[in-house]
Parts: sequence; C-alpha cells; structure tokens
Amino acid sequence: MTSPLLEQLIEAFRVLPGVGQKSAQRMAYHVLERERDGGRRLSQALAEAVEKVGHCARCRDFSETEVCATCASPSRGAQLLCIVESPADRLAIEQATGYRGLYFVLQGRLSPLDGIGPSELGLDRLGDRLGEGEVQEMIIATNPTVEGEATAHYLSQLARGHGVKPSRLAHGLPLGGELEYVDRGTLSHAFGSRSEIPQ
Amino acid sequence: MTSPLLEQLIEAFRVLPGVGQKSAQRMAYHVLERERDGGRRLSQALAEAVEKVGHCARCRDFSETEVCATCASPSRGAQLLCIVESPADRLAIEQATGYRGLYFVLQGRLSPLDGIGPSELGLDRLGDRLGEGEVQEMIIATNPTVEGEATAHYLSQLARGHGVKPSRLAHGLPLGGELEYVDRGTLSHAFGSRSEIPQ
Ligand SMILES: [Zn+2]
Ligand SMILES: [Zn+2]
Repeated sequence: MTSPLLEQLIEAFRVLPGVGQKSAQRMAYHVLERERDGGRRLSQALAEAVEKVGHCARCRDFSETEVCATCASPSRGAQLLCIVESPADRLAIEQATGYRGLYFVLQGRLSPLDGIGPSELGLDRLGDRLGEGEVQEMIIATNPTVEGEATAHYLSQLARGHGVKPSRLAHGLPLGGELEYVDRGTLSHAFGSRSEIPQ
Repeated sequence: MTSPLLEQLIEAFRVLPGVGQKSAQRMAYHVLERERDGGRRLSQALAEAVEKVGHCARCRDFSETEVCATCASPSRGAQLLCIVESPADRLAIEQATGYRGLYFVLQGRLSPLDGIGPSELGLDRLGDRLGEGEVQEMIIATNPTVEGEATAHYLSQLARGHGVKPSRLAHGLPLGGELEYVDRGTLSHAFGSRSEIPQ
C-alpha cells in the first residue's frame, strides 16, 4: 500500500462488527476521498465516548452521568420496571412503544456455563430496588431464546419474592430471534399485550 | 437515549458508506461494550489519517509523503505505467498480480456532464510524464463501464501522441462492474492477457 497511515486506518476499522478487509478499505477510502470532516467528527466522538461513557448506577444502561437522564426524570413512573438484556433492546422498546416507566438493563442473560450468574447481571441490586417498595409491576422483556426464557423465569421468581407482579411481552415475537431486530409494529403490539406470568 | 455522547457517536458512524441507523447503533454498542481499546485506536488512526494523508505528487494515490513508497522504489520499473481510476483499483491490481511497474491514479474518470475533464484527472501532468521518454507501455485499467471506456479511448490517444504503446486488460472482466470487486483470479488473468490497442 502507498500509505502506512492508510493501512493503519483500514486495520483499525476492522474492530467494528461485521467489517472485513474489503469493507474496511471502502470505509477508509470513502473518508479520505469525500468525508474528511466527517472522519474528524467520528474520531472525536469515539474518543469522547470511550473515555466518558460508563453505566448508570440505577439502570446499568450507558450513561456519562452517575444516574442517567431516564432514571432521573420526574416524568417517568417508578411503578413499572422493564427488564431488558441490552441497551439496544431498551432503545428498541423506547422507540417502538409509548412506555413511560423505568428500565433495568441486565447487560447479558443468565448463562451458568459461561460463569454468568445473578450477581454478574446486577440482580442483587435489582432485589434491593424491588425491596424499596415502589415497583409494582416488573415487565420482563428478555429475548425469546432458551437463555432469555430461563432468565425470565428467574426474574419472575425474584419479583414474586418481593410482592411485585411479573409480566412478560405478548407472544408474537419470532422465536429464536433477537428483540433488537424485531420491526416496530410487532414489538409495539407485543409490548402492549404483555400478560401477567401465571403462578 | 440515556447518553448524549452515545447519541453523538451513533450519528458520527453514519458518515461511513453503507452504514444506516441500525448499523451505527450496533457499532457504537459494540465498541462501548467490548472494544474500548479498539475504539481508541480507531479514533487515533482516523485523526492521523485525515490530517496527514495527502496525494503522491507522481501517481496521485494516497500518501503521507511528497512521493509515495511505490513511486520512490528503485525496484519498480518505470517503463510500464498502469492507469487506474481509483486507489482501490490500484490496490486490487497490486494484490492480484505480480505487476512491478508504476501506477497513475486518475481519482475519477472523464465525465464532461459533471465537469470532469482531462485536467481534473491530472492528464496534463500525465502528458508531461509521458514526454519524459521513460514510459514505453501504458496499461489502461479503467473500469469496463461507458465512462471508463471513453476515458480509456482518450488515454490511448494521449499515449500514441507521445510514442507510448497503449494496452488494455484482456476481456474477461464482467461488463458494467467495478474493477475493485472482481475476484483475484479473474483480475490476474485479465491483467496477464492484456492486449495492445489496435490503431
Ligand atoms: Zn439509568
Ligand atoms: Zn506515488
């Protein structure tokens, strides 16, 4: 290659998901040929986000402040708590529905073989929060996969143990899929028709 | 969204080619969840490349030095000059063939309706170079598209005007396609069986 810095840039792009050698080349050429300003903005946004974005102490979602804007908002109801596996799932629900309660982001799902148990998902802290007495319904929105369902089962037991009603999204989600990629209409419908988990 | 810096990062990723809202989200989450070091490296590589990578004064390809390593290399023969439309095309030929001559990168193709004429492609400078007398064969490797063919025609006239033999890659390239995406075997074969352009 004619430029070591270009080579380094192509290599660096490969850190992104789904980006192989060809895509990385295309990105590097595109930025250098047509988008130097955009490249500068991306460089700065990356540096800032990587240094400053941590996790909200209440919901575990990404936040650059101790408590995120959603958790701190007086207009969100604390009676409803929606549990999701990932920030992307939270965002999908927020964008697809009119939900005005709060969230809790597991940042994973129970997976004993991988050493991911309740404490890795912050469920001890979640238990404390349920013990505070404000939450009345726990909307369990884990993915409809085997591990997601096992996590949902654990969560519903945890909720009942604190006198909180557990509910889950309505059937209609495609089985084995990832919640993040469900179309808005289906997700909104499933969210609206959630049902209480029977004893 | 819970984090303005995350929002800014997602927006910034959209400058990349083929990256829409969903992919940008996936990239941002991936970097923050699993690849902060990779994100730092990408940020630095972008900043450096955008500031320091310019164009080689001889071949017009990307280079952070006045003359690129290929043009400056004593082991490349100056009798052969291969003309390509873009840096990506040059890289594809370099990776697919055993070519040891030099290159000239048009950074485009003739397109009068878009105001891209010979001087926008550096063809005046190319003419000067042909006039120096070192180049004996000009290998024209423009894309097999209508504009690429028109550019090839112009180039072959320019070569003959300076007593340089014009040649083109062998047929076998898919018509209407982009050279950059041809598989290595086909490209290598076409490069090896290039033929002189008849009068
Ligand atoms: Zn929060
Ligand atoms: Zn050069």
